[in-house]
Amino acid sequence: MSTPLTPKAERTRNHILDTALTLFRTQGYETTTLRDIAAAAECSLGLTYRYFARKEDLVLVLYSRMVQETNAEIAQLPPVGMAERFQQTMSKRLEQVTPYRDSVLFRSGTITNPTSDVSLFGEAAADMRQQTLEAFVMLVRESRDAPRNALAETLAALLYSLHFGIILFWLIDRSAEQQHSKRLLEFSATLIARFQPLLSLPLVSSSLNQLAAVLRPVFVGES
Amino acid sequence: MSTPLTPKAERTRNHILDTALTLFRTQGYETTTLRDIAAAAECSLGLTYRYFARKEDLVLVLYSRMVQETNAEIAQLPPVGMAERFQQTMSKRLEQVTPYRDSVLFRSGTITNPTSDVSLFGEAAADMRQQTLEAFVMLVRESRDAPRNALAETLAALLYSLHFGIILFWLIDRSAEQQHSKRLLEFSATLIARFQPLLSLPLVSSSLNQLAAVLRPVFVGES
Repeated sequence: MSTPLTPKAERTRNHILDTALTLFRTQGYETTTLRDIAAAAECSLGLTYRYFARKEDLVLVLYSRMVQETNAEIAQLPPVGMAERFQQTMSKRLEQVTPYRDSVLFRSGTITNPTSDVSLFGEAAADMRQQTLEAFVMLVRESRDAPRNALAETLAALLYSLHFGIILFWLIDRSAEQQHSKRLLEFSATLIARFQPLLSLPLVSSSLNQLAAVLRPVFVGES
Repeated sequence: MSTPLTPKAERTRNHILDTALTLFRTQGYETTTLRDIAAAAECSLGLTYRYFARKEDLVLVLYSRMVQETNAEIAQLPPVGMAERFQQTMSKRLEQVTPYRDSVLFRSGTITNPTSDVSLFGEAAADMRQQTLEAFVMLVRESRDAPRNALAETLAALLYSLHFGIILFWLIDRSAEQQHSKRLLEFSATLIARFQPLLSLPLVSSSLNQLAAVLRPVFVGES
């Protein structure tokens, strides 16, 4: 897929992908085969293979779409406070993953299993995590109350880690419409705004630097 | 299992359980059947069924053993500071779950899927979570630097939530011997000790109360 696709090929590829994602949502990831996808998309199995050699590739393309969408949203955020920019980003992120919540793709632990080919935290998604971290740097830097340079990188890594923490919490949240997760997001934003004036205290900023150094290798990757 | 077992029956039951746990670790949870367990334990399938009607029951007994072990360890902690008591408890907890780390039981997302019968966060384990929360109340209350009454309950709920946060982090941590998770635990203990003097400030204690109210329904249960 290194050479650009023709418009027709691009449409076919997107049609196969959309069909696959519908099947993952409705009948589950594990039980859906490439053959099922080809049949539902009314494509030959050969054509389907040409675009997606493995079922895992479809999931990685889904992640990649989500990452591009999230990063584009971050680029368009208004220059309000950092806490509000984080809250807006996360609200949309939770909306984005909600259709897949009951899918076996999420339920099976695929995304939390770092040895799986389609884990959010595995090797295959490492570049996407790095790209999203860079978007989070923008989220922090272009906020009205952006902190000084070095701390901005730290805060971006912490907010990106918190973003995964909220998604993992949302996965185990059984309340109606995951209301507890929404409350956790609101609370996080309130807390960030409330304690932001303290961030420049040396004891606070050094603690945050240490925490970012611990979380970053797991949530983003070894640098 | 409401009537007490004879010593011989108790031994048989433990033998079946140990055999099952070995199979879960070596060949994975999903692929192990009750028939495999009976064969490996050299028991009849009928006898195995008498003690464990479903494979899920074996997992719940494993959780229950772990909970009893952790709670017994908390009861024996020295009356040092809260941060150190938490660190000691968590170090042993991570040692306890390490043999199961690569098992499909963990890897399959069984434990993070709240709709699974054997989820750590589902209905079936709700009583165990409540018991462990009570042990964490003891962890806080009997520490040398125990805070005043109401805050002790809040801190127990927060430490118990942090305990699950560290376990989830440990699950996705691919570093050798999960060294990042160990660093996260050390850092958490350092941070708790460092900021403990601030806990009685009204703005801090009210934030902690709010956070506990958000986390508790998901990590412990609706009260």
